[in-house]
Amino acid sequence: MSTKKNLPIGVFDSGVGGLTVTRAITELLPHEQIIYLGDTARVPYGNRGADTVRRYALNASKLLINEGIKALVIACNTATAHGLEALKHAYPNIPIIGVISPVSREAVMRTERGAVAIIGTRGTISSKCYPAEIQNLLTQLNLDKTIALEQIACPLFVPLAEEGWLQGEVPEKVAMSYLEPLKKTSVDTLILGCTHYPMLRDTIAVTLDSIMPHHVTLLDCAQSTSRDLAGVLSELDLARDTTSQPLPTKERIRFLVTDEPSGFMTTAIRFFGGPIQRPEHVNIIMEDDTNADL
Amino acid sequence: MSTKKNLPIGVFDSGVGGLTVTRAITELLPHEQIIYLGDTARVPYGNRGADTVRRYALNASKLLINEGIKALVIACNTATAHGLEALKHAYPNIPIIGVISPVSREAVMRTERGAVAIIGTRGTISSKCYPAEIQNLLTQLNLDKTIALEQIACPLFVPLAEEGWLQGEVPEKVAMSYLEPLKKTSVDTLILGCTHYPMLRDTIAVTLDSIMPHHVTLLDCAQSTSRDLAGVLSELDLARDTTSQPLPTKERIRFLVTDEPSGFMTTAIRFFGGPIQRPEHVNIIMEDDTNADL
Repeated sequence: MSTKKNLPIGVFDSGVGGLTVTRAITELLPHEQIIYLGDTARVPYGNRGADTVRRYALNASKLLINEGIKALVIACNTATAHGLEALKHAYPNIPIIGVISPVSREAVMRTERGAVAIIGTRGTISSKCYPAEIQNLLTQLNLDKTIALEQIACPLFVPLAEEGWLQGEVPEKVAMSYLEPLKKTSVDTLILGCTHYPMLRDTIAVTLDSIMPHHVTLLDCAQSTSRDLAGVLSELDLARDTTSQPLPTKERIRFLVTDEPSGFMTTAIRFFGGPIQRPEHVNIIMEDDTNADL
Repeated sequence: MSTKKNLPIGVFDSGVGGLTVTRAITELLPHEQIIYLGDTARVPYGNRGADTVRRYALNASKLLINEGIKALVIACNTATAHGLEALKHAYPNIPIIGVISPVSREAVMRTERGAVAIIGTRGTISSKCYPAEIQNLLTQLNLDKTIALEQIACPLFVPLAEEGWLQGEVPEKVAMSYLEPLKKTSVDTLILGCTHYPMLRDTIAVTLDSIMPHHVTLLDCAQSTSRDLAGVLSELDLARDTTSQPLPTKERIRFLVTDEPSGFMTTAIRFFGGPIQRPEHVNIIMEDDTNADL
């Protein structure tokens, strides 16, 4: 019997956004333990250069791997876009799952009208990581399908989510302003391409209902990634025994942060949707530090 | 004749907020040249620990001082709160002006009802730097006056300003939600305690007009700081000769940034209120680096 099964899953993000992914994982896989690392000393990643983000992701992941984990989830769109390939290359013996591919695959399979919208931060949208991934998938899966893509940057959704302005007039008006251009498209599937956006899911859904003549399916990178992780653990025989009673949620997850832990708790509880353990402060030694200033 | 007079003024901020201060300086002192340093690789400072911010401020200021400046403006509330004393200690031979003291002095002098409100980021408000400064001033100036203070954190004003949502329903509703508690106070003077907030000045003024039975004077740290700087330059005989025609605004200011310059321009032009020179990328060597991770 493999003891590797009993190791926790590592989840990495720049801040609190990855907690929506962690919440989805813990709901889907209540027997698994998790170590969450929020690189709060360097948040936000969205505006940093690609090389910088890759270096941050490599060093943060090394810390999690040294803690002993059986799988690694990169619960951050920017770190996935710039770091996933380098991470897979650096750690070939551990399954590493990013947030872009699972939800993109779901979008490709589910769109009936062949029109998908992606909403994300300005950084994610301008990186074109979702269009590239969707194109890859169409080729890989050998699908005889073309998909029209609409990309919309929704930068105010992150502060609204972090500040807890999730419903009501302000978020609805912001959502309307961002999403109204979809009116003249046949988009039937929308990817929430930022780990913060599931917090605003209801407002986004209501707004789309009022704009679009047909139903739009919201796909959430947190949900898709947790389902992908479940599949990978099962396939590699890494899933924990599910016959016993799971531990209470709060005891299943350790939280590590790189800045002072005090600022993390309030927002983290909101994003996780329940009480969490007090985060521990960790230092990340930045190796391969060719940039003297960072 | 002193050639020191002809040196530029150094202005330092973590990002674009300090450009409202720069704009006020350049309007008030059109003959002066400016070097602006935005520490965009480490923005935002608001959530970082006090020691970290102090170290960033010291190293960034050293870069400006090495460029050759005759005065230094710390155009950032967080860097002023945590770094000003250390900077004055490190560089006793150069006048250094922060953004907290000038506007606080103005508030103390101008309030007639003895009630002042301070709005700022969550970090600025919880640091209580304005109440401490106002208390200091009352003691220093030996004023027989007590001032009631109201502090309100308005965290969404920064992303609204950066995204250019300056007027209309969304910023007005956000402002109303933050400022409504002032209704039951006799506040007649409000400090815009964040260098981003002058961008939202009109919306804040309209909101206060609709809430308050009497007029509320808005004091803007950008305006107050530039007036203070003018006084200091004149007092120390450091002001440039004003008899000749000033250079065009765009040619008077050099911009340095620590992250990739590309992301800086659009927001910077909006904050500065006109065209700017293309920013130059600089590296800041972080000395006294006792924290291996930063």
